[in-house]
Amino acid sequence: MKPINVGLLGIGTVGGGTYTVLTRNQEEITRRAGRPIRIVKVADRNLALAKEVTKGEVEVTDDAFAVVTDPNVDIVVELIGGYTVAKELVLKAIENGKHVVTANKALLAVHGNEIFAAAQKKGVIVAFEAAVAGGIPIIKALREGLTANRIEWIAGIINGTTNFILTEMREKGLDFADVLKEAQRLGYAEADPTFDVEGIDAAHKLTIMSAIGFGIPMQFDKAYTEGITKLTGDDIRYAEELGYRVKLLGITRKTEKGVELRVHPTLIPEKRLIANVNGAMNAVLVMGDAVGPTMYYGAGAGAEPTASSVVADLVDVTRMHTADPHHRVPHLAFQPDQLSDLPILPMEDVRTSYYLRLRAQDKPGVLADITRILADQEISIDAMLQKEPDEGEDQADIIILTHITVERNINQAIAKIEALPTINGKVIRIRMESLSR
Amino acid sequence: MKPINVGLLGIGTVGGGTYTVLTRNQEEITRRAGRPIRIVKVADRNLALAKEVTKGEVEVTDDAFAVVTDPNVDIVVELIGGYTVAKELVLKAIENGKHVVTANKALLAVHGNEIFAAAQKKGVIVAFEAAVAGGIPIIKALREGLTANRIEWIAGIINGTTNFILTEMREKGLDFADVLKEAQRLGYAEADPTFDVEGIDAAHKLTIMSAIGFGIPMQFDKAYTEGITKLTGDDIRYAEELGYRVKLLGITRKTEKGVELRVHPTLIPEKRLIANVNGAMNAVLVMGDAVGPTMYYGAGAGAEPTASSVVADLVDVTRMHTADPHHRVPHLAFQPDQLSDLPILPMEDVRTSYYLRLRAQDKPGVLADITRILADQEISIDAMLQKEPDEGEDQADIIILTHITVERNINQAIAKIEALPTINGKVIRIRMESLSR
Repeated sequence: MKPINVGLLGIGTVGGGTYTVLTRNQEEITRRAGRPIRIVKVADRNLALAKEVTKGEVEVTDDAFAVVTDPNVDIVVELIGGYTVAKELVLKAIENGKHVVTANKALLAVHGNEIFAAAQKKGVIVAFEAAVAGGIPIIKALREGLTANRIEWIAGIINGTTNFILTEMREKGLDFADVLKEAQRLGYAEADPTFDVEGIDAAHKLTIMSAIGFGIPMQFDKAYTEGITKLTGDDIRYAEELGYRVKLLGITRKTEKGVELRVHPTLIPEKRLIANVNGAMNAVLVMGDAVGPTMYYGAGAGAEPTASSVVADLVDVTRMHTADPHHRVPHLAFQPDQLSDLPILPMEDVRTSYYLRLRAQDKPGVLADITRILADQEISIDAMLQKEPDEGEDQADIIILTHITVERNINQAIAKIEALPTINGKVIRIRMESLSR
Repeated sequence: MKPINVGLLGIGTVGGGTYTVLTRNQEEITRRAGRPIRIVKVADRNLALAKEVTKGEVEVTDDAFAVVTDPNVDIVVELIGGYTVAKELVLKAIENGKHVVTANKALLAVHGNEIFAAAQKKGVIVAFEAAVAGGIPIIKALREGLTANRIEWIAGIINGTTNFILTEMREKGLDFADVLKEAQRLGYAEADPTFDVEGIDAAHKLTIMSAIGFGIPMQFDKAYTEGITKLTGDDIRYAEELGYRVKLLGITRKTEKGVELRVHPTLIPEKRLIANVNGAMNAVLVMGDAVGPTMYYGAGAGAEPTASSVVADLVDVTRMHTADPHHRVPHLAFQPDQLSDLPILPMEDVRTSYYLRLRAQDKPGVLADITRILADQEISIDAMLQKEPDEGEDQADIIILTHITVERNINQAIAKIEALPTINGKVIRIRMESLSR
């Protein structure tokens, strides 16, 4: 059968992995797809690298636009990253009637609505399994595997760098800055780690999952994002004493008033399977009204794991592209004229429970003041842990776990607690999720 | 858009769940599928039940053949179970040009090749997500999500009843028979639990996963099946002392000589995520050459979890049925003319490692005899645990963990050890898997 022709934009880590996997597993992939999938043209600024990886077996160019306009190319694989050139290339490919496979979470989270509308109009597919959680087929699970369900919430460890750092902090009792250096040395963190450690990368991925889970447009600009840079070894240790692990979770939940869309460090009960996902691995927990909890685990990054998703999309497009567009899986899981306008909930309106750590003078009445403030804000206490003051000190850490309350109330309570003369410095606030039904 | 019409065979647990989920989530499902999916006819021997569940809103009959021949029915959902009538009905539905959705693992594992051939010939789809691991979309992950990979092996906790029993045995220190009674009382085990506790149900599901993972025909008759009925609380406790959990795993692995296809109790390192899947939950771990390990977790049984998969298949068929049959996802993941004839490996040729427990007299030379026998069979020892004899006894338990060897050798070694005059009774043998790459 006639091969399907792929133009590859970017032959870096994931591009190289895609080339390798397609070549190595060619026979098996063809046996599945029903026809060969072959890369016919590769564009990369680094022509020498492109030639080296493709061993002269494929046409290479440093002009990506020559790929997206090539009449011989059926599917364009965009692995350049970023918002600007990548956007232009993807739109140009669509304009030229190409199907597109992309791993670019930032592009989709920010410009996805425009891109999918263009693809819809042109009757082409934009596939993006590789954009979320690397090799884990979570997009497929959400868009196709769980279609019977009203999705209630999704909570994921969707950034390998931060999960590696948090795992090391816990296992070695270190603070963030020390582990970051080690992670950078080992290649788990980039020289500029901002996107990862500030939760921006996770928020991109969460935005995509939220859209396909709930049938809403991509709304990255409304995501709440808090990274792990301020976490201390102390808080991770205290959490553990109380039976919790700290993970950077992306959480999106549908409520009557709107959709929660938030990335932040989160205490989760250590008995939950997802609490035990360690190192650079990713996992996504999905709660559906019919199926209950399901979880998807695997490598969230890396050349071949990400390539695994890119190639799965290529096989999907190969199978689907002859179907009439109305019968394909919709880009955002729901039919494009069936998206909901449920708003994203402001963070102040989110309801969850909290870990609070404060440094208080070891005096009578301090606890009474704190618990009074919490009670006035209608916050009830689930557990409390008061540490002995260190030798020679007159201040001690107090840890409070609250029941579920609204974020606005906790913010007000924290302001009042910080104003107490017996409290030293800022109150540390980490959100908690039970991740049960 | 014109609704797609479903005929439902069987309105028991899963049938009732399917009816409930389709009704409750109708709006959300239609927004995804692009057209309404409605049940137009229900067949059940228990007409009163059928009427009660469908509240008079749907035509009911006690003649299942009236459903599979009804020109108004587009898709037949078979939830009757068993091999005989179900097979006849599914083949009749195919003959009448209906697409089929089934949760019937036994039927597919035993008669799948014949059924898929008939469907292929007629150009209809037989979808079976609900047949393996209940609500977990594992068929979709294997057939579509991991198409880039050469699957190396699949290992799954794919029977909730036995996982519930093993979890209780470990947590409460009980023996099999006592927990079984409790499980029956709670509804986790059937009055005749043979299919579950002897591993037959797991072998059905494993047969299906093996076929789609490796592109081979269904070969249930060649599966090795060993249940959990002989497991003792002692073995589970000893395993734990050594850092392992005991799970009933379905394992299928591709080797150069053939495909391993086996269900048996298995020691797995407690650090593996899958070792911590407890209660009636299921999980499937898949090793792909590109993606590495991925795991899929969720409810493996129950009305609504299983219905979640049935309805997802209905949405898939609704989307796919207008596509030309050559571009649909192949039933067995690989194109029907591309199946491999790699044989199923006899159990004697399987290579794995072992937990051995033997009861030996507390005399000099006993260990020397045992280790000599193992060495003669080229079996090397990974760890050994010798328990103190109980007070007043002159015999003690010895536990040996071996490195990887071939099953034939361990069988020979066990026969020789059992023949030693210093050894009392049978040697207990439980297989071990590291589940690492």
